Amino acid sequence: MLQRYLPADVPENREGAFLENFEKTTGGSGRLMLFAGDQKVEHLNNDFYGSGIPEEDNDPEHMFKIAQKAEIGVFATQFGLISAYGRDYGQIPYLVKLNSKTNLVPYTDKDPYSQQWLEVADIVRFKESSGLDIRGVGYTVYLGGEHEHAMLREAARIVHEAHLNGLLAVLWIYPKGIYVKDQHDPHLIAGAAGVGAALGADFVKLKVPYANGNFDPSLLKEATQAAGRTGVLCEGGDKVDEALFLAQLHEQIHIGKSRGNGTGRNIHQRPLKEAVRMADAIYAITVKNATVEEALKIAKGE
Amino acid sequence: MLQRYLPADVPENREGAFLENFEKTTGGSGRLMLFAGDQKVEHLNNDFYGSGIPEEDNDPEHMFKIAQKAEIGVFATQFGLISAYGRDYGQIPYLVKLNSKTNLVPYTDKDPYSQQWLEVADIVRFKESSGLDIRGVGYTVYLGGEHEHAMLREAARIVHEAHLNGLLAVLWIYPKGIYVKDQHDPHLIAGAAGVGAALGADFVKLKVPYANGNFDPSLLKEATQAAGRTGVLCEGGDKVDEALFLAQLHEQIHIGKSRGNGTGRNIHQRPLKEAVRMADAIYAITVKNATVEEALKIAKGE
Amino acid sequence: MLQRYLPADVPENREGAFLENFEKTTGGSGRLMLFAGDQKVEHLNNDFYGSGIPEEDNDPEHMFKIAQKAEIGVFATQFGLISAYGRDYGQIPYLVKLNSKTNLVPYTDKDPYSQQWLEVADIVRFKESSGLDIRGVGYTVYLGGEHEHAMLREAARIVHEAHLNGLLAVLWIYPKGIYVKDQHDPHLIAGAAGVGAALGADFVKLKVPYANGNFDPSLLKEATQAAGRTGVLCEGGDKVDEALFLAQLHEQIHIGKSRGNGTGRNIHQRPLKEAVRMADAIYAITVKNATVEEALKIAKGE
Amino acid sequence: MLQRYLPADVPENREGAFLENFEKTTGGSGRLMLFAGDQKVEHLNNDFYGSGIPEEDNDPEHMFKIAQKAEIGVFATQFGLISAYGRDYGQIPYLVKLNSKTNLVPYTDKDPYSQQWLEVADIVRFKESSGLDIRGVGYTVYLGGEHEHAMLREAARIVHEAHLNGLLAVLWIYPKGIYVKDQHDPHLIAGAAGVGAALGADFVKLKVPYANGNFDPSLLKEATQAAGRTGVLCEGGDKVDEALFLAQLHEQIHIGKSRGNGTGRNIHQRPLKEAVRMADAIYAITVKNATVEEALKIAKGE
Amino acid sequence: MLQRYLPADVPENREGAFLENFEKTTGGSGRLMLFAGDQKVEHLNNDFYGSGIPEEDNDPEHMFKIAQKAEIGVFATQFGLISAYGRDYGQIPYLVKLNSKTNLVPYTDKDPYSQQWLEVADIVRFKESSGLDIRGVGYTVYLGGEHEHAMLREAARIVHEAHLNGLLAVLWIYPKGIYVKDQHDPHLIAGAAGVGAALGADFVKLKVPYANGNFDPSLLKEATQAAGRTGVLCEGGDKVDEALFLAQLHEQIHIGKSRGNGTGRNIHQRPLKEAVRMADAIYAITVKNATVEEALKIAKGE
Repeated sequence: MLQRYLPADVPENREGAFLENFEKTTGGSGRLMLFAGDQKVEHLNNDFYGSGIPEEDNDPEHMFKIAQKAEIGVFATQFGLISAYGRDYGQIPYLVKLNSKTNLVPYTDKDPYSQQWLEVADIVRFKESSGLDIRGVGYTVYLGGEHEHAMLREAARIVHEAHLNGLLAVLWIYPKGIYVKDQHDPHLIAGAAGVGAALGADFVKLKVPYANGNFDPSLLKEATQAAGRTGVLCEGGDKVDEALFLAQLHEQIHIGKSRGNGTGRNIHQRPLKEAVRMADAIYAITVKNATVEEALKIAKGE
Repeated sequence: MLQRYLPADVPENREGAFLENFEKTTGGSGRLMLFAGDQKVEHLNNDFYGSGIPEEDNDPEHMFKIAQKAEIGVFATQFGLISAYGRDYGQIPYLVKLNSKTNLVPYTDKDPYSQQWLEVADIVRFKESSGLDIRGVGYTVYLGGEHEHAMLREAARIVHEAHLNGLLAVLWIYPKGIYVKDQHDPHLIAGAAGVGAALGADFVKLKVPYANGNFDPSLLKEATQAAGRTGVLCEGGDKVDEALFLAQLHEQIHIGKSRGNGTGRNIHQRPLKEAVRMADAIYAITVKNATVEEALKIAKGE
Repeated sequence: MLQRYLPADVPENREGAFLENFEKTTGGSGRLMLFAGDQKVEHLNNDFYGSGIPEEDNDPEHMFKIAQKAEIGVFATQFGLISAYGRDYGQIPYLVKLNSKTNLVPYTDKDPYSQQWLEVADIVRFKESSGLDIRGVGYTVYLGGEHEHAMLREAARIVHEAHLNGLLAVLWIYPKGIYVKDQHDPHLIAGAAGVGAALGADFVKLKVPYANGNFDPSLLKEATQAAGRTGVLCEGGDKVDEALFLAQLHEQIHIGKSRGNGTGRNIHQRPLKEAVRMADAIYAITVKNATVEEALKIAKGE
Repeated sequence: MLQRYLPADVPENREGAFLENFEKTTGGSGRLMLFAGDQKVEHLNNDFYGSGIPEEDNDPEHMFKIAQKAEIGVFATQFGLISAYGRDYGQIPYLVKLNSKTNLVPYTDKDPYSQQWLEVADIVRFKESSGLDIRGVGYTVYLGGEHEHAMLREAARIVHEAHLNGLLAVLWIYPKGIYVKDQHDPHLIAGAAGVGAALGADFVKLKVPYANGNFDPSLLKEATQAAGRTGVLCEGGDKVDEALFLAQLHEQIHIGKSRGNGTGRNIHQRPLKEAVRMADAIYAITVKNATVEEALKIAKGE
Repeated sequence: MLQRYLPADVPENREGAFLENFEKTTGGSGRLMLFAGDQKVEHLNNDFYGSGIPEEDNDPEHMFKIAQKAEIGVFATQFGLISAYGRDYGQIPYLVKLNSKTNLVPYTDKDPYSQQWLEVADIVRFKESSGLDIRGVGYTVYLGGEHEHAMLREAARIVHEAHLNGLLAVLWIYPKGIYVKDQHDPHLIAGAAGVGAALGADFVKLKVPYANGNFDPSLLKEATQAAGRTGVLCEGGDKVDEALFLAQLHEQIHIGKSRGNGTGRNIHQRPLKEAVRMADAIYAITVKNATVEEALKIAKGE
């Protein structure tokens, strides 16, 4: 693990703030449990309403309740939601997701562009005026289309401006579009990891690599090495069985050398109590070096 | 209902202004009766001249006369009209609609982009220099096309800048274009509601959901819940019979849990006196918890 | 007529300047005689050289000579020409046309975009440093194409910034492109008039409405009413017989309720003396309530 | 000739600088001999290396040697070259060409956009900090394509900013693309001249007009008159015989009423001594009213 | 060689810094050994993982270890990597590569645009706050596509802003796209060299010229002469045999008159010790006038 991770673009007067942010957010482990709650835009209402989803998940406050009660690294969502619920959920460690797009246009028809909504300076001022515990900012980059250049530029600026202000920067990096034959190709994912490193991200959230359609944690190694000092977060993806999820998470970290995860649906698509336990279980593996068995007990409330 | 709605991005020195704006505009009900008068651009002259429309509606001043005499939450129209008539209609509570586009190009031919005309800072300065009672700003977002990113960014900035200045922010959010098969799909509308929440809007104006081509107020529930603390406003649409309109409005609020409405043609496509009564009737249901019968009496001047 | 036309966005310390500009420019009539001289870009050299055009019209100074000697409301042309001739033609009331495009690309092939050349702040500084009598600014908006949004935004800003500085704002608004079947449709023109009002223009220059290919002044009424407090200017168009031109102008104003005209070719495509008389005749009808007969005498130098 | 050419947008405190720039650069003749050296980008290496071109022309310093030794109005080239050689060629009167594009993409395939590289403010600061004798700035506008609007705006700003700083502004204006059937059409060229005047250029460089494929100086008159106070510069074009070149130049000025020329290849595609003599010959005709015979003697070193 | 290379846009108070940067970086030779490490984005993970590549190369730190131990002119890589490793590799002379794009979209399908990520001002502030030894900035320009204009503008600004701050500016200039039939055409490469000179670059990295598919150092002469005072760097390209690489490098410099090289894969695709020796060998030829034999001994550790 890293002894003391401190990018050189964090200025002297923000070193303390950055180090504290990093330590607190990773619980001293260098690993990040990111509770992803940006799907209201990314997937419209698909992840929050429908068969197999508890009704309470349709209310955005559900995620805030989870984030308040569970052990998490950060709760990542859009500024507007943080602003609407922040005064009542002041204990949550937040990460402001600075861009989002809907899923209405297929990636194969038009190249995606998810533009930055607010400036890092807006977030810094908001953190100060609201007193909320904002730990960092997030941004998604889609590689492989005609807007790649715009997102690379915005990402580079966001990471640097976050560091200038002592904040963490997390990038979601996904190759997309007609030139991307297989989003789960380990070599392609390693490429995305390298882009995250070149952009200076503290963490980069990536697709999970597959071989012949199956996850194998050793496939992650190319990416986690290529990412250098940037921590690789594995995408949580569709909701699956708890035991399977936790086992794979453990392998991602201990075999694949990922440095955390970004999980949304596998947490919030459960009733509150169950969701909190699942988040706690994920946190236990990610940050507290729990075994799968220990974590599963937490998830089951045993 | 909300006890005290106050987004966290309203700074301390604007809290009073925001709370007063919200209280006065919703009459303490948390619900908004928005008199929509932006169709001069959105529909060119179609809504103001033609068979079944009284001649006086062709003069933009008609809307100002209604807004001055009726009980309304806000009168939403473009800056230029407010500027032209404002000195003579100083009692109206205004909401400045910051973008608009014409209907000349079909949504199926080119993806719409309705760009922001003026900055929130312009409106703030105008409010101060003119002394007009400007309560907030409005903006339309079209989801699903190649300019979605630009409108999401402008919307996010407008909402945040409005809050920084103690103003209300209302978004009109409509999925449009070739990927939108059914604009009245309840699940799609709930998605738009969630986008409004993620953008931090105080209110979001949406299409009305249909099942098999018919409105059913219970279909609204997915959207009103998904919107969280953002109030859902139902679009008024084409002019219909008063009784039907008011009955549906009552159901939208009391069954569907909408928090108001945005009505234009159903008000201004009537002679002045009749229009004022219709606006009053809508206000009575929306803000004063009137029954349909009570409201119908108001509408009929009984 | 208007008692005192004063948009609410004119700040207190510019009220006097704006009112004086408006009064002087409309000769107290509220109507504007605009001598249009922006065709060097709009039509390249077609309007200035060729059969039926006097040779002197090819020299840009011809227009300045006319504008200096004739009674006009404003002479509208590009900044560069005003700058080149301004020191020698200091008595002309100018309106700076802030955008222009050439006619090389057909509207049916590519949607037009006529971008703003200079900022209103540039014009304000120029007015001060040069001492020229600049009364306002002008801008063309093409509705119906993929650049509509950009021109609506520029127009809205220009009108507002003009008012902030006590200047008049005139918009040329023309629907164009493949979705515009008939540019002379009275209902479409009324729509353009409403857009002008929503943008806050003091005057809006429009196409002349036709029914079955013929001008009928009563067709203008929809547009002049829809424009509200924004004065409608009729386009002068191709050069025609003086008597016909003046008779139609009189009808536009007294039957159609237009508030002036924008005339170029019907003035400058004549030898200097004749052009000055024609401009005087147009001014007499527009501003001085002259009859057609009186104006025709002026035009003929009788 | 002009008595005293002084655009109205030159502010009082820069009048002396502008007048001196104009006088020195035109040698009191009001005519400009512009040595054009921007082809390294415009034509890549085609004009500098190949059959019939002396090897020394391939080194950019060749042009600086010529410009230093010959009599010229200005040497127009890109900022980077001026910066690289400026300390060793401090006596040259420079004009900074602010935009350039390569010739790799045919005009018939994609509409050209040659964007501004540096701001006029950069040039003003550079002139001051370097002490170089910078007389003005230049910019190319391509009319007739989808980027016309961007270049018209940049050109208008550049001309105005140059004048605000006492600098000369020269525009190259060329209609291009699929809608331009004949670049040498005299009427089209006159249109381009008028655009230059409307943009306020001090000089405008144009294509040479042809009738039936042949140059006839009288064809220039439409353009030189349409340009008003903006001086027309004829393009030098491909290298031709000296006698023919000088004879045509004389006719352009004395019959066609051009106010100078922009010549590159006909100068620099010669060995140094010969090139200097050719430049001197061109200057003699352009500025010193030399006859063709006198100029030819200079060119031949007799 | 140049006596004292000092572009005229380096201001007086940065002259010392620029001269020192240039001297130290070129070891007094005027030639630059650039260790290119920007492929994490440009080629995704292709250059760092796979058959024939040592595993350690997959970790970005491998390049920093090489750069720290070897003799190099500058190590060119993205800001994010410098920021992540800078505190531990403080002795490396850095050049910040300001733009990068991935290789997912073929040049023949869409014209490339590699946009600037950070401003030169950001780099200057970073250099100061971090104390890192940053010598200059780099940027890639792709000629021949619809985004050429944007990259030319960014390049021109970057070079100028670098000089204003006493930093070196290196441009990578590559014609690309469907109009480029042969990227190795010597005449086309000379054109790119001239563009670099016109942009004012201190060094320009180019493709290597071929005749009939073979490299011949004499083919470089057109480009190195056309580049004027801008030093030509030859691209290192795919990894080849050491002896061949060093021999060609020697010929490029001593026959072709290149002023250095930009080498990545031929260095970092080796185990650390070997990679350091190869870098040292390249430096010896480039900067220290070593013979091929001497350099080969260094490369082989003899």
